[in-house]
Order: sequence, then C-alpha cells, then structure tokens
Amino acid sequence: MAPEKEVQGGVEWRVTVPEGASAVVEPRPVNGWADLVRAWLMAAAGFGRKAWVIGADDPRKVVHGVKVGAALSLVSLFYYTRPLYDGVGGWAMWAVMTVVVVFEFTVGGCLCKGFNRAMATVTAGLLAVGVHWIASRAGETAEPVILSASVFVLASAATFSRFLPAIKARFDYGITIFILTFTFVAVSGYRVDRLLHLAQQRAYTIVIGVGICLLVCVFICPVWAGQELHLLVSGNMEKLADSLEGLAEECFMEEQGKQLPSAKSPGYKCVLNSKASEDSQANLAKWEPPHGRFRFRHPWSQYLKVAAAMRYCAYCMEALNGCVASEIKASEKMKSHLRGVCVKLSSDSSKVLKELARSIRSMEESRSIPCLVTEMKRGAQELQASLRSLPEQLMSAGGEEETTADGGGGETQRVTVSLMEGMPIITAACLLAEVSERVEGVVEAVGALAALARFDRKKAAFASVAPQEESATPQRQEV
Amino acid sequence: MAPEKEVQGGVEWRVTVPEGASAVVEPRPVNGWADLVRAWLMAAAGFGRKAWVIGADDPRKVVHGVKVGAALSLVSLFYYTRPLYDGVGGWAMWAVMTVVVVFEFTVGGCLCKGFNRAMATVTAGLLAVGVHWIASRAGETAEPVILSASVFVLASAATFSRFLPAIKARFDYGITIFILTFTFVAVSGYRVDRLLHLAQQRAYTIVIGVGICLLVCVFICPVWAGQELHLLVSGNMEKLADSLEGLAEECFMEEQGKQLPSAKSPGYKCVLNSKASEDSQANLAKWEPPHGRFRFRHPWSQYLKVAAAMRYCAYCMEALNGCVASEIKASEKMKSHLRGVCVKLSSDSSKVLKELARSIRSMEESRSIPCLVTEMKRGAQELQASLRSLPEQLMSAGGEEETTADGGGGETQRVTVSLMEGMPIITAACLLAEVSERVEGVVEAVGALAALARFDRKKAAFASVAPQEESATPQRQEV
Repeated sequence: MAPEKEVQGGVEWRVTVPEGASAVVEPRPVNGWADLVRAWLMAAAGFGRKAWVIGADDPRKVVHGVKVGAALSLVSLFYYTRPLYDGVGGWAMWAVMTVVVVFEFTVGGCLCKGFNRAMATVTAGLLAVGVHWIASRAGETAEPVILSASVFVLASAATFSRFLPAIKARFDYGITIFILTFTFVAVSGYRVDRLLHLAQQRAYTIVIGVGICLLVCVFICPVWAGQELHLLVSGNMEKLADSLEGLAEECFMEEQGKQLPSAKSPGYKCVLNSKASEDSQANLAKWEPPHGRFRFRHPWSQYLKVAAAMRYCAYCMEALNGCVASEIKASEKMKSHLRGVCVKLSSDSSKVLKELARSIRSMEESRSIPCLVTEMKRGAQELQASLRSLPEQLMSAGGEEETTADGGGGETQRVTVSLMEGMPIITAACLLAEVSERVEGVVEAVGALAALARFDRKKAAFASVAPQEESATPQRQEV
Repeated sequence: MAPEKEVQGGVEWRVTVPEGASAVVEPRPVNGWADLVRAWLMAAAGFGRKAWVIGADDPRKVVHGVKVGAALSLVSLFYYTRPLYDGVGGWAMWAVMTVVVVFEFTVGGCLCKGFNRAMATVTAGLLAVGVHWIASRAGETAEPVILSASVFVLASAATFSRFLPAIKARFDYGITIFILTFTFVAVSGYRVDRLLHLAQQRAYTIVIGVGICLLVCVFICPVWAGQELHLLVSGNMEKLADSLEGLAEECFMEEQGKQLPSAKSPGYKCVLNSKASEDSQANLAKWEPPHGRFRFRHPWSQYLKVAAAMRYCAYCMEALNGCVASEIKASEKMKSHLRGVCVKLSSDSSKVLKELARSIRSMEESRSIPCLVTEMKRGAQELQASLRSLPEQLMSAGGEEETTADGGGGETQRVTVSLMEGMPIITAACLLAEVSERVEGVVEAVGALAALARFDRKKAAFASVAPQEESATPQRQEV
C-alpha cells in the first residue's frame, strides 16, 4: 500500500514505512515485464485507494453503483424468463437501454430523464407515424423524399432549440430521444411497415425500464436532489460563518501566540465554487415529489437566491483574505485599538450566519435573528466609531509616552503617518463592515425562503430563548 | 409581432405601436377557442423571437442544427439504398443512434464522444464475449447465474467509477456505453448465439456513424473548443480591463458631469461566472488535433490558470463595486487629491490587461508588457505616496481657507475627522492597489502561457513600439 506521487517526466516512489518515516526510492528505468506489471499494480492500487476514499467519504455513492447493478439484473430477467421474453421479445433491449441511460444518482435526475424519455418517445412516435402516413399517400418516388426532408427539418430544428436556455435546462435529454425516435420510426417504417405494433412494443419497454428505475431509485436508499441542495446551502453557510471568524482572527490576532485557525478560512472558497452544482440540483429538485419535510412546490429557486447572497459575501471575504495575505505593517497600538470591535463584528456576523444556517437546516423560523442582526449592526456602528476615534486614540496613546517632543504640528504628522501606514488594517476593517452589510442580504434572502417554505414557528419560539440571551450580552470576553 | 410580458397570475399584453408609443391591454379571461389559439400563437411568436435572437447572435448555432440534420439524412441513406442495406442490415439503426448521440457542437466534443463510444464498445464487447465463453463452458444452470452476476458486478463497479473526478471528466459517456454494450452482448448472447457476427455488425455501424459525424463536424464550418476557449479567455480579459476603468471612473468621477460609463463595469461578472464553460472547453480542447494556430499539445490547461488569475482580480473588483455602490461621503477635496492617481492606476492596470488580451488573441509575445507593468507599479507607488500625503494635503488646503480658527490641535481634529469620513474612498483606493497587485498574477500566468505555447516573437518587437510610447506619457489629461 505504498502511496505514489507522480513527478513530471518520471515516477517517484515514496514508500511509507509503518513507523511513519518515509523512504524515497529513486526512479528506475522500466526494463522488464516484472517492472511493467509492478508499475501497473501500483497504478491500480493508487486508483483503488482514491476509489476507497470517495466511497468511505460518501457511502451512498457505493450504494448507487449497487442499485444500478440491481436494476440491470432485474431488467435482464426479461431475457431469461420465457413468458416475459415472448411478451416483449427482442425489444427488451430497449428496456435495458432505458435503465442504463435513465438511472441517475438523485431521484430528481431519474424522474427528469424518465419523463423526458417517455414524453419524447410518445411525441416523436406520433409525429413520425403522421409523417409516414402522409408520405405513404404521396406515391413511391415521393415517399423517401418526404421522409428524408422531414428528418432533416425536424432534427435541425430540435438541435437548434437546445441552445435556448429554458429548453436546455429541462428537456436536453428529451430532445436527443425525440430526434432518435423520430428518425427510427420515420425511416424504419419504410422497411418494416408495422408501425403500430412497433410503437406498442417500445411503449411497453419504456414503461418497464422507467418503472424499474424509479422503483429501485425511490425505494432503495433514495438520494433526493432537493435534500442535497438544502444541506449544501446550509452547510456552505456554516463554512462561510467559520471562515469569517477565522479571517478576522488571522487579520487582527497575528501577533498573539501565533495559534492561527487558518484551517477555517478557506471555507468561503466552497461558496465561490458551488454555483454549478447548486443550479443543477435546484433544477432536478423541481422534478421531485414531496419528500421528507419538503412539501409540494417547495421554493427551490429561493435557495439559489440565498446562495447568490452568500457568494456576494464570499467575494468580499476573498478581498479581505488578500489583505490578510499582504504584509500588515500596522502598529500594535492601532491593531489593539481595532481588534476588539473587528473581532466582535466578525463574531456577530458569524453568529447571524450560523443561526441562519441552523434555521434552514431545522426548517424552523428563528426568533433570535432580529436580535442578532441588531447586535451585528451595533457592532458595525461601533467599528465606525472606533475608526473615527482612531486618530485621537493614537494621539493620546502617543501623548502619554512621548509628550517631550515638539508641539501640535509634529504630533499631528506622527499620527497621520502612523494612520497611513496602518492603511491595510483600516481597509480590512472597512471590508469587514462591508461583509456585515452583505450578511444582511443573506438575512433577507433566508427570510424570504422561510416565508415561502413556511418554516415552522412554534418550536422556534421555544428554541430562540437561549440564543437571544446569548446575544443580549455581547461577548466581550472573546475579544 | 407584439412583444409579450408575462405577469404572475395572468398575462399582460403590451402591444408596441409602430410610432414607439406602447399601449397596455388589460388581461382578459380566456373564454373561447379563438382566445386560446391566439394565446398559443403569441407564445409561439415569443419563442420564435427568442430563437431568432440566439440565432442572429451566433449563426454557428443555426449551422450546427443544419449539420445534424445533414448527418442524419446521410446516415438514413443506409435504409434507402438497397446494396448498403444488405450490407449493414437492421443494425443500421445503430448508426443512426451513433450520429444522434455523438454529434456535438464542438469538434472536441464530437471526437471525445466518438472515441468514448468506439473504445467502450470494443472493450465491453471483448469482455462480454469472454464472460460468455466462460459461462457457456459452465453448464446450462450455471450460465444465467454467471452472466447475471457479471452484469451486476461490472455495472456496479463502472457506475461507481464515475464518481472519480478523473474518470468523470474524460470517460463519463464511455462508461454508459460500456455498461450498455456489456449488458447487451452478455445477455443477448444467451439467446442469439452468434456473437462474433453481431460484434462485427456493431463495429461497422459505429465506424459508419462516427465517420459521418466527424466528416460533417470537421469539414462543414467546424467549431473548435480550443478556439472557443482562446477567444473566451481573451475576450473576458478585455471585459475585465474595461470594467476596471469603468469602476474607477464611477468611483472618483461621480461629481463631474454625471456621464458615467456604468455600462462598462458589469463586465467583470462574466469573469466570475465563466468557470464552468472554461473547464468544459479546456477538457474538450485536449481531444482536438492541431488546428489553425494551435499546435499539437497546446497548453490548454494553462488557459485555466490565466482564467483563475483573472477571477482573483474580479473578486477584488466585486468588493470595489460594493464601495462604489455605497454612498461615498468623502469631501470633494479628498476625492480630487486621490482622483488623479487612482484613475491613472486603474487606466495603467487596464492597459496591462488589454495588452495581455491582445497578446493572447494574436498569439504574439508582447514586448511592451514589462514597460506597462513598470508603469503600473509606479502608479501603485504614487497612489501609496498620495495616501500618505493625504493628511498634509488636507491640512494645507484647509489652512489656506480657514486659518482663522484655533491652533494646531483643532486643525488636527478637523483633518482626522475628514480623513475618517473619507474612509470608503480610501478603502476603494486600497482595493484598487490590491487589484493592480493581482493583475501582476495575470501577467505571470499569461507569461507562462506565452512560454508554453511558444508565442510569436518577431512581430511583437515591431508591434510593441506604439503601446510603449503611449505608456511613457502617463495620461494625465484623462484625469
């Protein structure tokens, strides 16, 4: 089980010895079958390890594999069992194909593809039979011309319609099947001439295929796209909260002890990068029936608005992260003046985000949010006041130490110089204020979600006592 | 051709009168077939307009539709022409299916899917024949058990392997085809018992299908994913440059004339949102043969690094945009002091980005870049100096006007108060400096791209004279 690290131009083997020490084996030229086999085995082991990590991280992925295997085995029964075989015949192949193509990880994906496949097959089949009927009336020479022309026109139009975003999002797969079925029926009808029988066969097989898919997908460890979206958004919000606290601590605590919780801060990057998966999950969730705590017509698109508001925060935090990364030359005096208010503001904003995440996760309306938001706003005002009083603070602090120097003019210069040197930290403080303002946008978006999804209110009244009390005593001791 | 606007709960008809005035027709209850038909026609007209806009915007999309139609008509010839029909028989259906499923917008997409389909069919076919041979030796009762078990195990494993990102990116479609072919051959072999003939047929049809796809895709108005990526990245860089200029102007010019080029600024949002399409295009570009100016092994993944560096800039610009949006209460004095350096820095950074975009677009190494970067760095230093001298400036400016007031202490207070009130504009200036620092990251990434892709050097020496001169005279007149 030696972990392998690929280096450009060759392979470096790093063999981990059980004690934890590691020995690097020099790359050797591959000079025999034994080496080739060994290299292949190593690569396979590396691949296996990756697969193991993914499976251990989310066992539902392994279950999904097993589900597909089970559905295929079920459908291949149609080949083995005589009576069924006689019923559906050689067309059982289409049931196999339906299962392979329609089976998706989430229930929403499965329903979306199943619906697309069924609808597209029916529509295209009917249309093709119609065209075929017209063509057969037109005489033997005109028939192939009409059929070819109809295939050309419909395939072109259907392919082009995929570029329309509304169609692409919902019916992309359906259009593939539409073109496929139309071409099959229109063209093969020319030879086979038993269209209705053929249509009936395909309808059976699609019903069987989609039915097996849905049965296995819904009743064996179902994965709901809606639930995934719900957890993704609330999880990202928690990461954002952690990372906001982490950033402020890194920015203002640097001198103290050097025990930085820097592992926290990259959480906001998940928020920056999750747009694509949120969009697709919201799209699939709309196909799903009510499940768990999610009612019919749950406002899935509102989750996207919440996520957009979070991303809006995360952009600002990225800029703040730039400030943290750049060398901050501010005097310890200035830092200590701003530290309290900044860390308090970030912790207040982070508390708001965490409470929002809790509220989404439990689907209960939180009564402590208004309090927490007020507290956060007060924190922002304190930060503004602190910034405004910064020159006086610096002056009085300087005054105590070195009043021996020249008069007002010199001191002013000293203060303004130290002010201007501490510009990065002031920028960081301003960005923190901007982040807290953008957190209010998240509060609004979550409020709209709570109203649209009719979050529970009763429990919230009971549960909100603790956070409310907590927020009433601003946690200065943290600072 | 009346444009239609849908309103929640009803339909509002806005009929545009030729003169340009518009009359709003009140929503009416739908009370007859005529109304239904009219509503349907209106919806169809709206749909048609959208399609027209998309087609007019990028006519290659219309051409793509026509290409698919042509490829399908070509392939359906196999049904109409007797000699061909006798050769490929009922299996010509597979050629149709191959064309419908493999034909993609870009050449890379088409090649990727064609290769996947061919390889997966061959691998799965050989494996299935092997399993079938073993099963046929095991006796009649064991045969279906072995076949079913092999389908179950292979389908489960293949489905799970899709969760590995490396496999997902390259072989997602191949795995679908692998499962499909394996199941078909393993299961249908049980009945048909003429596997080799079947395999030969499928090989023919796939060669025909993929061949027709590639012929049409490559030789009729080809769309190369690599070229698309190249244009997307250079185009986004130009948008970023425009939007940087626009933001600085909005931020510092607000009082003057109010003629804001605010249409420019949202350009950076394209950069924020284009990650998914960049990733997929880079992925497909790797499948493409050398084309146009792109050699074999063109460094497509370096484009992703350039795009990431650009996104890094764009995050900062998003925060800057927040500053622009928030009410800036800075005194005109302070603004006018910072305006010059800030607008110069943003125009310098924007020039660097534009020159980089030009260099990428023309694939020529730019010799003026070092000069422009030096100029930008000088601009950043000037901005720093300006910020540092801000208090003195404010003091002297104030001094001229109102020296009548009390001594040094009062004046200091006045200056510091106006400093702290102008905090948002100082933050904006700091963010601008941060953006210019991040632009250096873009310069590095593009430099690496130029080295890897061996950009042309000769023309660059000639072309660089003009921008160099331009940059030597900082454009104060703009300010």
